[in-house]
Amino acid sequence: MNDSWQLQSYLKERIRLVDSALDRYLPGIEILPTRLHAAMRYSVFAGGKRIRPVLMLAACETVGGEIKNVLPAACAIEMIHSYSLIHDDLPAMDDDDLRRGNPTNHKVYGEATAILAGDGLLTEAFILLSNKNFWGDLPFDRYREVINILAKSAGSRGMVGGQIVDMEAEKKPVDLPTLEYIHTHKTGALILAAIEIGALLGGASDEQRRALCRYGEAVGLAFQVTDDILDIVADPSQLGKDVGSDEQRGKATYPALLGLSGARKRANELRELALSVLDIFAESARPLREIANYIVHRSS
Amino acid sequence: MNDSWQLQSYLKERIRLVDSALDRYLPGIEILPTRLHAAMRYSVFAGGKRIRPVLMLAACETVGGEIKNVLPAACAIEMIHSYSLIHDDLPAMDDDDLRRGNPTNHKVYGEATAILAGDGLLTEAFILLSNKNFWGDLPFDRYREVINILAKSAGSRGMVGGQIVDMEAEKKPVDLPTLEYIHTHKTGALILAAIEIGALLGGASDEQRRALCRYGEAVGLAFQVTDDILDIVADPSQLGKDVGSDEQRGKATYPALLGLSGARKRANELRELALSVLDIFAESARPLREIANYIVHRSS
Repeated sequence: MNDSWQLQSYLKERIRLVDSALDRYLPGIEILPTRLHAAMRYSVFAGGKRIRPVLMLAACETVGGEIKNVLPAACAIEMIHSYSLIHDDLPAMDDDDLRRGNPTNHKVYGEATAILAGDGLLTEAFILLSNKNFWGDLPFDRYREVINILAKSAGSRGMVGGQIVDMEAEKKPVDLPTLEYIHTHKTGALILAAIEIGALLGGASDEQRRALCRYGEAVGLAFQVTDDILDIVADPSQLGKDVGSDEQRGKATYPALLGLSGARKRANELRELALSVLDIFAESARPLREIANYIVHRSS
Repeated sequence: MNDSWQLQSYLKERIRLVDSALDRYLPGIEILPTRLHAAMRYSVFAGGKRIRPVLMLAACETVGGEIKNVLPAACAIEMIHSYSLIHDDLPAMDDDDLRRGNPTNHKVYGEATAILAGDGLLTEAFILLSNKNFWGDLPFDRYREVINILAKSAGSRGMVGGQIVDMEAEKKPVDLPTLEYIHTHKTGALILAAIEIGALLGGASDEQRRALCRYGEAVGLAFQVTDDILDIVADPSQLGKDVGSDEQRGKATYPALLGLSGARKRANELRELALSVLDIFAESARPLREIANYIVHRSS
């Protein structure tokens, strides 16, 4: 399909742009302490799909902003995402040996270095966001707000909060509200922040910002619902982890609570919601539209 | 001694001020996820001496600034200090069961929660620093710089970098340059940042800022040298940990490299340097002068 090919080449070009910026912004492996910087880079460049940076760039473009103004923040959010994966994989947390088919950070560098590499990446995000070189022509208060949004989305009432409720929920019955709390926090908060920051740094009006936030909420949850579905139905070689691993671990999932067809219905409703709030935009929202379709269709 | 009594009551009043602000700024234990917020608060209120916030407040006053303008940043730096202690104490790191005579965070809440509580505190610091309510009348660029200074001092080229070099240095011979690298990064960077941020938010001139930074460097290192001395000579009941624990762990220390009298000489030189750079200030620098004396004299 021609459209699908276009999205793939769009994503590929954006990922290249983000990867190259991450390489520029992260401390080099020649900088002391070299092993720590190697560990930080190992996880950032371990084959992530760059969903959050790509969404941030696309939100910025949707409101007519320039990509270069949002690239540092896009890298900062990817650093935070990478740190969260390093800490999630630790023996005391999910105890995973593999991520995207590669050994996890602590399997390569040891637990202590992995903890510190995560801490370093989280902190690096705020070094980057507060670097004067990246504060452009917008009112300074907008840059302040960007830092505040990102910190809140990553903190104890955002991503970290979702992670702890997720852990507490293992091996005990979980209802739908708890499951939605986990996902709107653990993955949804950072995805929403990506979209909102892209809108802010792209110069969005209040109305545009509100619409994009609703898109971000819907797509963030749709992403998680389809992830749960993929855990059951996917080809293991595409998944990069074992099929059925959520079930083995006793994790609550949408298919477990809603059934497979119920989960697919929910994903599709979220996709339609995401598309409908984009109606106020013309052609500039095409990437966001195609990403919403792509996220949901990969599981059907 | 009358002077010493005055310093003690000054410190007591400042600690009370900082503690009360920390209580206001940290998420309450009634806010979800409640267990995470309880764990974050547990370590913040585990009897810290609030050295960094107290130094920040004193630097602000030295240049004629108002304490209320610097209190949020003082709490942010204490949150970062607390997070670093939680992660340092983890089994994969220093594996400590006690801190200041109390069970460490992971002994009370478990390892996973302790990791996340540390992550939450680090992130909370940046939520606080980017909160519009705490940006006052100074040029906005100064608040940006405060965030940047704090992030850099805590990151991979600051505190986290010092921690990893410290771990790598255990059980192998360490020379004086490596030991100074460890301490100027692991503890020195955050102490220096406290002083510099206090100066900035107090409205320091460039000359005042430079002088206070030199004070911060000297006092930060003096603090570590005397800590090493105390590890050998202190009364265990005062130390809150076992005497000689550094030696048992194979940690490099100043007394091990310079001898006890050499280490005392070094601490005193640093104290004199710290006092001499304060000569450009009149009575307003009295707290900083007394703190420098106090830090070094507690070990003699």
